[in-house]
Amino acid sequence: MKEIRLRPIGVIHSPFTTPRGTPIQSAAGRDVRATVEVFPEYAEGLQDLEGFSHLILLFHLHRVKPYTLTVFPFMDTVARGLFATRAPSRPNPIGFSVVRLLSRADNILTIQDVDILDQTPLLDIKPYVEDFDVRRNTRKGWLGSKIAGMHGTRDDSRFVQEDRWVQEGKKVREDG
Amino acid sequence: MKEIRLRPIGVIHSPFTTPRGTPIQSAAGRDVRATVEVFPEYAEGLQDLEGFSHLILLFHLHRVKPYTLTVFPFMDTVARGLFATRAPSRPNPIGFSVVRLLSRADNILTIQDVDILDQTPLLDIKPYVEDFDVRRNTRKGWLGSKIAGMHGTRDDSRFVQEDRWVQEGKKVREDG
Repeated sequence: MKEIRLRPIGVIHSPFTTPRGTPIQSAAGRDVRATVEVFPEYAEGLQDLEGFSHLILLFHLHRVKPYTLTVFPFMDTVARGLFATRAPSRPNPIGFSVVRLLSRADNILTIQDVDILDQTPLLDIKPYVEDFDVRRNTRKGWLGSKIAGMHGTRDDSRFVQEDRWVQEGKKVREDG
Repeated sequence: MKEIRLRPIGVIHSPFTTPRGTPIQSAAGRDVRATVEVFPEYAEGLQDLEGFSHLILLFHLHRVKPYTLTVFPFMDTVARGLFATRAPSRPNPIGFSVVRLLSRADNILTIQDVDILDQTPLLDIKPYVEDFDVRRNTRKGWLGSKIAGMHGTRDDSRFVQEDRWVQEGKKVREDG
């Protein structure tokens, strides 16, 4: 099947400049604030957004290393199938987060409850709509017994592409 | 910022061969069944998936026409900012659905509650985890008063790229 080409529509500015120590889910990033800079040419598409309290962000997991089909996820000590985890190293490294929208000033959104790295390329914004997006009484597989650890678990950089980070000439080293 | 290149990891087979008449959300596609064919080279990554009752699918909205920054969404008669809607024509046309996983047989998943078109290229599968993905008491903007219409609303092909469909040599015409 054909290759699909995407172009970022903006960039996310967050306090998390290195993967190490970043919350592993937005639900565990409560109270962390960040800004979304939508490039000016897309600003018109943000009309009406401030009516929504929560947004779905899709973004490029730009600092991950190449994927493997089984992984040791952050919250387990057993190898799991990649697609049964939320590990960021994936064949198509697209991140998904539900964040709180605090305010919008033209093309800049202030958001909260964030697990996203600084400088992450933004691919899409969709309104979060409970009626569309909430499922209850779900089965949670291997994660079921591990969820309680979510808030205390932080990224330990196991999925990070250190080479790429260095190649891009960033000042902050992964292990810094 | 750099272009991002993705390759499908599979293809979704559904009863919806034309956009017209397709449910506009998976929550409105209750009881509709479909299959996800994950390409064999990725099958190993499906281990442990059957422990989850619901999955997040990311896919390429492959039949949409070019986006506009304001749209008349399916559920309103007022033009809205594109990013305040779930309209499929977007700068990066990535679809997001939460579906029910009924079973897995090697690299074939049977799913239910589907709003996805037949032959849609699959980009990613993530487990749906209530603790990560559910938000409650959200504000729903312009959609708040429209939600009741979700189940009765069907795609009327307003976002469809008819030319592309014809160019790809499909047998079914958009207006057929």
